[in-house]
Amino acid sequence: MNRYENLAQVLSERIEQGLYPAGDRLPSVRILSSEHGVSISTVQQAYRVLEEKQLVEARPKSGYFVTSTRLQAALPSGCRSAQRPVDITQWDQVLDLLTAPELPGFVQLGRGSPDITAPTLKPLNRAMVRASQHQNLLALKYDSIYGSLELREQIARLMIDSGSHMDANNIMITTGCHEALAIAIRSVCEVGDIVAVDSPSFHGAMQTLKGYGMKALEIPTDPITGISIEALELALEQWPIKAIQLTPNCNNPLGYNMPDERKKALLRLAQRYDIAIIEDDVYGDLAYQYPRPATITSFDEDSRVLLCSSFSKTLAPGLRVGWIAPGRYHNRALHMKYISTGATSTLPQIALTDFIKQGHYLQHLRRMRNQYQRHLCTVTSWVNKYLPCGVGVSRPQGGFLLWIELDERIDTQRLNRLLEEHKIHIAVGSIFSAAGKYRNCLRINFAHPLNDIYEQAIKQIGLTVQQLMAEE
Amino acid sequence: MNRYENLAQVLSERIEQGLYPAGDRLPSVRILSSEHGVSISTVQQAYRVLEEKQLVEARPKSGYFVTSTRLQAALPSGCRSAQRPVDITQWDQVLDLLTAPELPGFVQLGRGSPDITAPTLKPLNRAMVRASQHQNLLALKYDSIYGSLELREQIARLMIDSGSHMDANNIMITTGCHEALAIAIRSVCEVGDIVAVDSPSFHGAMQTLKGYGMKALEIPTDPITGISIEALELALEQWPIKAIQLTPNCNNPLGYNMPDERKKALLRLAQRYDIAIIEDDVYGDLAYQYPRPATITSFDEDSRVLLCSSFSKTLAPGLRVGWIAPGRYHNRALHMKYISTGATSTLPQIALTDFIKQGHYLQHLRRMRNQYQRHLCTVTSWVNKYLPCGVGVSRPQGGFLLWIELDERIDTQRLNRLLEEHKIHIAVGSIFSAAGKYRNCLRINFAHPLNDIYEQAIKQIGLTVQQLMAEE
Repeated sequence: MNRYENLAQVLSERIEQGLYPAGDRLPSVRILSSEHGVSISTVQQAYRVLEEKQLVEARPKSGYFVTSTRLQAALPSGCRSAQRPVDITQWDQVLDLLTAPELPGFVQLGRGSPDITAPTLKPLNRAMVRASQHQNLLALKYDSIYGSLELREQIARLMIDSGSHMDANNIMITTGCHEALAIAIRSVCEVGDIVAVDSPSFHGAMQTLKGYGMKALEIPTDPITGISIEALELALEQWPIKAIQLTPNCNNPLGYNMPDERKKALLRLAQRYDIAIIEDDVYGDLAYQYPRPATITSFDEDSRVLLCSSFSKTLAPGLRVGWIAPGRYHNRALHMKYISTGATSTLPQIALTDFIKQGHYLQHLRRMRNQYQRHLCTVTSWVNKYLPCGVGVSRPQGGFLLWIELDERIDTQRLNRLLEEHKIHIAVGSIFSAAGKYRNCLRINFAHPLNDIYEQAIKQIGLTVQQLMAEE
Repeated sequence: MNRYENLAQVLSERIEQGLYPAGDRLPSVRILSSEHGVSISTVQQAYRVLEEKQLVEARPKSGYFVTSTRLQAALPSGCRSAQRPVDITQWDQVLDLLTAPELPGFVQLGRGSPDITAPTLKPLNRAMVRASQHQNLLALKYDSIYGSLELREQIARLMIDSGSHMDANNIMITTGCHEALAIAIRSVCEVGDIVAVDSPSFHGAMQTLKGYGMKALEIPTDPITGISIEALELALEQWPIKAIQLTPNCNNPLGYNMPDERKKALLRLAQRYDIAIIEDDVYGDLAYQYPRPATITSFDEDSRVLLCSSFSKTLAPGLRVGWIAPGRYHNRALHMKYISTGATSTLPQIALTDFIKQGHYLQHLRRMRNQYQRHLCTVTSWVNKYLPCGVGVSRPQGGFLLWIELDERIDTQRLNRLLEEHKIHIAVGSIFSAAGKYRNCLRINFAHPLNDIYEQAIKQIGLTVQQLMAEE
């Protein structure tokens, strides 16, 4: 790709994502030239490409503007009203997603699985072979309850990118982020306790609350700035909330990065009410921006944040290697780790340590960030093309998940059943709510190669949605 | 080893284990000849070897007798009195065991780790290499929430040996037996519930009860026949017990196999009071007898038993591959599996399936059963030789753990601290009781090569015990 094509792509992605809204003035040729370190004529060529695509229009003596006639999908409306703490439902729908067929020819858009076919992941397989061959006795032994110290040191080093300077001794290795979240929740809450969650929220964390008999209080959440601090404050006044559980970076399912100021405001609230924050950072390293956004943990001065993460989204979920940095809840978290699985599988830890030490992790991240950002651009254009007007579409700042809000008469469980005939599976919106809201929403995965089959699947979703709307 | 040496060893092991008590008549030459398919003269030679070792004595016209002057250690006394349900303590001591140093030169006798250096385990490493090389994409993917179907089919096939004919769909793969036990407990109990346990009992299962806020009721347990059905019945009359958690085969720490009739009686009690049984079978395949003893599960007609097991003791703990067959509690167990770890690490499952399919599992089991039985013989003789008179010693029927009861004035936590100076670590008895009983007991591991260092460690334990007794 030429320099100007490259720049044109970066700009068109920003437009697709809504960073430059319709009708807005784009940066001047001079600014872009200096920002991207390219010549004036390269920028001019890039703008000409965008003009041809009718993404921008030149206005004499004023510069370039995002085409005002261009249809940018609206944002999803999010949840607006404060609610009562509720028992979590929707397990049947989650199970439906977990056990959906993965047969050849099936387009599985519902799962949160990353692309594991990238060549930058090959060294991980080689590391697994090496670990099996040369460290075989080590790989067969019980690991320490804390997990491999070497791996924890590597994780501590990687966490510097998110603003944290953490000692490896404050990190415990877990069987994926799932175990980290379960440990976190059990470390700070008892049966019957109320946990405030972003809404929509990751179904796995909510099912964990359900399993341990806790109640969720869904807090209104903005699709660009995240959980509403104002609504959370009202909720804290009203209810005896024990913890806040949220995904502030590359949110699942909405894709936003909370602005740092709002992260700090959240932390101040948690301090004022003396409650814990459970921060799910599992997609954080996949933020499109570089350097990646800071974690709430990085601003945390009194160790009240329990950071949960894993390599399941950045590398490969089959490894089942995650971690928790439980802050002041260390002792209780350690007990929870012991009774949950005793120790984490040894071989994947040895292989991962090797892979990260050799610099392959950051290399792979760079590739995947770019790939997912490119895919977002394509999938957004397909959604705009094939889905009916009036749908709301999220504007992810990282990761590989897109949230789509349909006309409120559409029930996406019904939609999913109809799509099954076309061998397509989506994640229904209701699993992202404790009480089964977001019935008219869906989440799709755009990690995997965006081939013709994928495009046809989006087209079919559009057709089936129209069919359902015609029935109404 | 010659045939007669082989037979001599079998007989001497039975004598050491107390199967033929001091003064008792041994089987006739004719019976042994027919039982073992060897000639009369082979049996006669074997008996001569035992005579030389002063293990048996010939009495004219009467046959062979176990030397009556021979000192057989007494059995541990076990726990006799019924107790109240209690909150579990001892986490500090368990953590002490989990984090004890594993430095070179340190003799770690406390842990429940198997010997992983056997040549029959080599094919497992080769299977791991193959899985990393050829099935790399499969190994990186999320596994099904149930775990690998192929592996579950192999486990179902292996379970036939314990008398169970189970469909693979009734089995879920877990991250070791730890996760299986946690899932089982959470599937049948709520916070505050009472669980009856054998006593002494596996500390991991009791810590799980602690972590989930349940109470343990310790039931008197016989060192040969297991949990007292009579005491359990009294307890069931008196307390609202929700489940019974026990290890009926190759019990940890006592090593007994419950007789089948007592297993059936236990099941009838559970039926009468309509409660669940959580059966830990993690050492069951290591029973010295062949075929191995039946599980309670194999007699279970109304699916009230939750069977928990793993490959951690039979093969290698670092794999973290276990399973649960949760019977009628399937749906709740599935939810618990989801919130606990989401899925189990994929690569070890692929490698294990390969290893078992090729017949390596049963081959390895045969070797380890023999090795551990030989080791038991040696370690028992060392304990008899070096420890003061009056100690009680368990008579394991499988596995690689020995339980020793010292004079009741001895506190084994104190003993352990003194032994640390000699780079020796044992498991203290108090962790095997919910309320910290068995302070005068210890558990040692005899899985690993019984070399001179090991013998010196037993000798040192004897010396330190004598030192402590002199202080009293």
